[in-house]
Amino acid sequence: MWLPSQLPGIEEAMRGSGFQGDPKDLSDLSRPPMSAVVSLGGCTASFVSPQGLVVTNHHCAHGAIQLNSTPENNLIVNGFNAATMADEVSAGPGARVLVTDRFERITERILARARGKTGRAYHDAVEAASKAAVAECEAEPGYRCSVVDMYYGTDFHLIRQLEIRDVRLVYAPPDAIGSYGDEIDNFMWPRHSGDFTFYRAYVGPDGRPAAYSPDNVPFRPAAWLTVSTEPLAEGDFAMLAGYPGRTFRHRTAAEFADQVEWQLPSRVELMSALLAAVERATAGDADAGVRYAAQVASLKNTLKRAQGELDGLRRSHAVAERRTQEAAMLAWLPSQPDAAAIRADIDAAAEVIASARGTRERDQLFGLMQAQTQLLRGAMQLQRLALERGKPDAEREAGYQLRDEARIEAALRQAQRRYAPAVERAILAELLARHRALPADQRVPEIEAVFGADAASAAAALEALYSTTALADEAERLRLLAAAPPEVRASTDPLMRAAATLQQAALRLEDEDKARAGELLRLRPAYMRGMIGHARSEGRAVYPDANSTLRVSHGRIESLQPRDAVSYAPLTTVEGIVEKHTGVAPFDAPAPLLDAIARRDFGATVDPGLGTQTVNFLTNLDTTGGNSGSPVMDARGRLIGLNFDSNWEAVSASWKFDPRYKRAIHVDARYMRWIMARVYPAPQLLHEMGLPLDGADRAPAEADGR
Amino acid sequence: MWLPSQLPGIEEAMRGSGFQGDPKDLSDLSRPPMSAVVSLGGCTASFVSPQGLVVTNHHCAHGAIQLNSTPENNLIVNGFNAATMADEVSAGPGARVLVTDRFERITERILARARGKTGRAYHDAVEAASKAAVAECEAEPGYRCSVVDMYYGTDFHLIRQLEIRDVRLVYAPPDAIGSYGDEIDNFMWPRHSGDFTFYRAYVGPDGRPAAYSPDNVPFRPAAWLTVSTEPLAEGDFAMLAGYPGRTFRHRTAAEFADQVEWQLPSRVELMSALLAAVERATAGDADAGVRYAAQVASLKNTLKRAQGELDGLRRSHAVAERRTQEAAMLAWLPSQPDAAAIRADIDAAAEVIASARGTRERDQLFGLMQAQTQLLRGAMQLQRLALERGKPDAEREAGYQLRDEARIEAALRQAQRRYAPAVERAILAELLARHRALPADQRVPEIEAVFGADAASAAAALEALYSTTALADEAERLRLLAAAPPEVRASTDPLMRAAATLQQAALRLEDEDKARAGELLRLRPAYMRGMIGHARSEGRAVYPDANSTLRVSHGRIESLQPRDAVSYAPLTTVEGIVEKHTGVAPFDAPAPLLDAIARRDFGATVDPGLGTQTVNFLTNLDTTGGNSGSPVMDARGRLIGLNFDSNWEAVSASWKFDPRYKRAIHVDARYMRWIMARVYPAPQLLHEMGLPLDGADRAPAEADGR
Repeated sequence: MWLPSQLPGIEEAMRGSGFQGDPKDLSDLSRPPMSAVVSLGGCTASFVSPQGLVVTNHHCAHGAIQLNSTPENNLIVNGFNAATMADEVSAGPGARVLVTDRFERITERILARARGKTGRAYHDAVEAASKAAVAECEAEPGYRCSVVDMYYGTDFHLIRQLEIRDVRLVYAPPDAIGSYGDEIDNFMWPRHSGDFTFYRAYVGPDGRPAAYSPDNVPFRPAAWLTVSTEPLAEGDFAMLAGYPGRTFRHRTAAEFADQVEWQLPSRVELMSALLAAVERATAGDADAGVRYAAQVASLKNTLKRAQGELDGLRRSHAVAERRTQEAAMLAWLPSQPDAAAIRADIDAAAEVIASARGTRERDQLFGLMQAQTQLLRGAMQLQRLALERGKPDAEREAGYQLRDEARIEAALRQAQRRYAPAVERAILAELLARHRALPADQRVPEIEAVFGADAASAAAALEALYSTTALADEAERLRLLAAAPPEVRASTDPLMRAAATLQQAALRLEDEDKARAGELLRLRPAYMRGMIGHARSEGRAVYPDANSTLRVSHGRIESLQPRDAVSYAPLTTVEGIVEKHTGVAPFDAPAPLLDAIARRDFGATVDPGLGTQTVNFLTNLDTTGGNSGSPVMDARGRLIGLNFDSNWEAVSASWKFDPRYKRAIHVDARYMRWIMARVYPAPQLLHEMGLPLDGADRAPAEADGR
Repeated sequence: MWLPSQLPGIEEAMRGSGFQGDPKDLSDLSRPPMSAVVSLGGCTASFVSPQGLVVTNHHCAHGAIQLNSTPENNLIVNGFNAATMADEVSAGPGARVLVTDRFERITERILARARGKTGRAYHDAVEAASKAAVAECEAEPGYRCSVVDMYYGTDFHLIRQLEIRDVRLVYAPPDAIGSYGDEIDNFMWPRHSGDFTFYRAYVGPDGRPAAYSPDNVPFRPAAWLTVSTEPLAEGDFAMLAGYPGRTFRHRTAAEFADQVEWQLPSRVELMSALLAAVERATAGDADAGVRYAAQVASLKNTLKRAQGELDGLRRSHAVAERRTQEAAMLAWLPSQPDAAAIRADIDAAAEVIASARGTRERDQLFGLMQAQTQLLRGAMQLQRLALERGKPDAEREAGYQLRDEARIEAALRQAQRRYAPAVERAILAELLARHRALPADQRVPEIEAVFGADAASAAAALEALYSTTALADEAERLRLLAAAPPEVRASTDPLMRAAATLQQAALRLEDEDKARAGELLRLRPAYMRGMIGHARSEGRAVYPDANSTLRVSHGRIESLQPRDAVSYAPLTTVEGIVEKHTGVAPFDAPAPLLDAIARRDFGATVDPGLGTQTVNFLTNLDTTGGNSGSPVMDARGRLIGLNFDSNWEAVSASWKFDPRYKRAIHVDARYMRWIMARVYPAPQLLHEMGLPLDGADRAPAEADGR
């Protein structure tokens, strides 16, 4: 996950993979062609025409497709295909296309007031400087700005993005193509999903970002990608650009050990226990079952992912390898200038990390008491908001600023559909029992004050709280949301009183956490300098952990041997769609697709080697959450596919990239072209992208001149 | 699944696969080398030394291993390794090694008295002639005889087998090797199981079969197989001999359609409904849950297999293909002599088959009312036994002869552990509801007489029957088993009265069934003659459906592409054991195995291509239930492995052999040799088989002269 600016430094490796361009041309993410790669906030996308046409994953556009569905025309089922620009529909007021146009190192500015401080003060100084830089940058309308931290406090960058707010849905295949296989196939190569959708970015007549208006005009991007019309095969060069969210690959050996030996196993155990508690509490109560279905699905997903990550990190010997790397760095360090100071910081960071271990059980349980409840979390949010509203907006805690209030209101409303008192009590009973089992010095006095110190008290407290609180009533929650802070604080609702007590603990724990975060922000750069310096001494470059900034990965189309005697080919074909088709979602391929497959109506998008139409392909590119929709490009920078998933064996890649197992899953641009040429035809878009209309390998004869 | 006698006729195809011997040498199953292949009754095995050493699957010897386990020495866990012959232990009084020494066509004798008859009379005449031939053959002590039917009534053969009754356990690896992966990996290539065990056959000092005695001596077989010391690779010739139980590949297109369109889907639906009924009835009742655990496992297994068979037959377009073959045969038929008579029989057979469709729902439900209950089935068995005991043994219904009484007693005893009244009532309530939904002309009057014609009557009848019957008491069941027939018939126990009424229906349905079976036995040979004749006209030979007689299959070591983009290599390695190892059964590889793998202590059994120790391999050989333990041989007839499983995609092969999907799974003889050389050493057995003692590719230096 290289920063574009690092690409010239790894030119040799890129050429070795087969890259045919000049890495310098890719090194500025704010200029063409990299500026064709945009963020949707959570997903990646790219411009593919000079008229602001954007391609991303179907699953990234799911909300927009749902929003435009009506009982008469369910776009999820039917797909969407705007015949002309006038038929394009709004992706919703929250939809964004973010085009990066500035990426500036501002380390000195951010750290100027932090230097000499420690702990919480260091943290607060960095936060204040960051907020100030963002505010200054956002003073110019139409931009969203952020400060990002590279190498854990080593470097800070200011990023400015043009914030396009009029985003329209242009083309989406039916869900049965766009998410064929859905949750069942998720993470499971071989996949057969046509996970692509087209948007168009619109701006005001003045060319500046504007809210949706019929008067708006298509945005004219400085750069757009060309779609390849050439075949793909195993071994071909591939690269990918996008906005990966978060990785942990530069954590210390102690943190790796904590992850493998405690975090993941305890998460597996706790999620299993909570699932069992919810299942017991909803048994025989169909209504409660429906209310908790989403939470159960989320618990199962967390459990499955934790187990997958644990299995993967063990399989890759991640802890032992990091210990070896760290030991090698520490052995090399004394030969360097400033070695003693660096070593002192590294050792101090290790102590801070070790200190968190003493309260990790407590912190985990206290977090889950809020994350896994509806009413208690709501009460605590109301109390916290009442506290934060007493401050200037810029000084409020992140998550409780003015911009966050709509989200809090939505959550308080949603609780109405996702709450049943018996189930929330069962969840809390399970967590409280575990809290009571902690050593005395880890237990939270405020939890004991509210729920008592033994099982009988906890049961009585839960009974009393949930049988008398008025918060189960949506109107009451919204009333408190609208009420003045003193009125909220004065509420005598028993759950509001409990939340007020627990908030004291939350603030104290948060303060401890921020102090630790500040210390690590101050001390970790020494570790990073050691690791980077040692790597450089061995001729290796080091990229920073992912942080939602634009990154580039290069590699090849590559098969996967996940287990003894099992081999996965890197290209799937439409034959696999037919094999998986059962007629029942998520394996209900639509008739036009099955018919076109049966006719073998592939035209020029047919794979010459396989003699059939491909669907998805597999590369060894480096991805994580946030890379959904990332353009995959060939050696000449042409679009050959969209990233949309990764394989199960790669779940642990957020901590460790293991080349034997890490693959990324892409929808083949040829499948997209075939769907648009032969299955759900969109000749106007093929034409706009300069692609053959009928799948034949030639430019379109006709043109509609739009 | 060729009869050995057919092999000279397919010499060209065998040579094409790579066979290097003379097929004529394999054509007599009662002479060497085919007589080295023996039946254990349900499993296949083979002699591998002149001293009666027999090799078969670990899972075929599971009962013998369990029988010899003690609290102090659990042979299932520890394995078994007799240092000398004196240490070999009895596999139990029921263990058998059956050596075929006669295989004689007796069609004329069997059909002599059937000719001119129809329906039930034809059936009874064939049965009487078969029983007489068996009785005559078994007059000579030490033999077990049977009459088998080839091509559905076309040909009958008398088979005589030497019945060796002193079978001893010689060597078994621990269960964690012998059934590594167990139920989870069952049917799931890639597998990693060391599924082998050694027996030795003993006879009396006079060389004749005898019950276990310390005075017995090792049997000296006329033939034994040599174990190969050469490597294996994809594409190598392989052949396999064994006793496959039953296939249905020569059924008519109408029967294929019935299987795919009704039998399997209805089985899936019914098994799911019964599972749900049992689960509802055992919910919250741990004791009932334990009592029905085996029945639930069996229902699930039946359900899974039915679904797998259904998926496979659909995937292979089995119905359409058989329709095409049948149409081609019927189009060719008029050019043949006797065409009109053959066609008349074929059409008459089709009518008989069609007639069964009218009552298939009824027959299925009535069958399940016995198969899925404990007490009701017991009551019906007691009534039926009372009826049959009034006849000479030879005339009794199969299953109710003197030889069957011990089995019936065991079942009546076992009910004590497998019965809970609420669950049996729930099962019957489910089946009765379905019976009531049948059209009036399909409903069984006796069922209505016992359980009434509506839901309320059924509930009342079940309540009355199960709250008052004394049959829940094991002593009462055994008292009735021992009682004289008139006393049984006079029993006033309400469940015995119900069984007496239902027995009238059972006898009537049985009579209909036998009449249909007799007609089909008379008429099907015309269909077979048509299909065989048409195949011959196209140069194809046809083997009879499997019927537990010795068959040979030839082919190659072959990979499998079960789904789009998925490829399975044909050889697995010990690395896969390590990958699957979790420490929890069935993936708890024992320490000596893991240590030997870690040491890469492979010696001469290492695969030269893979550079590691192989475990299992995959061929395209034709197998079905009964082929467990079958020797797999190379082009020169040397033992290269033992068959023990097949792949999931091959579940439908009992109806249709589809070369894309049908594979057989074998334990590699090199893995067996390695386990015996380096992991749980048995140099005495390697020596007895003429194999290198230390895995080195040379004859043993020392010899113990046994």
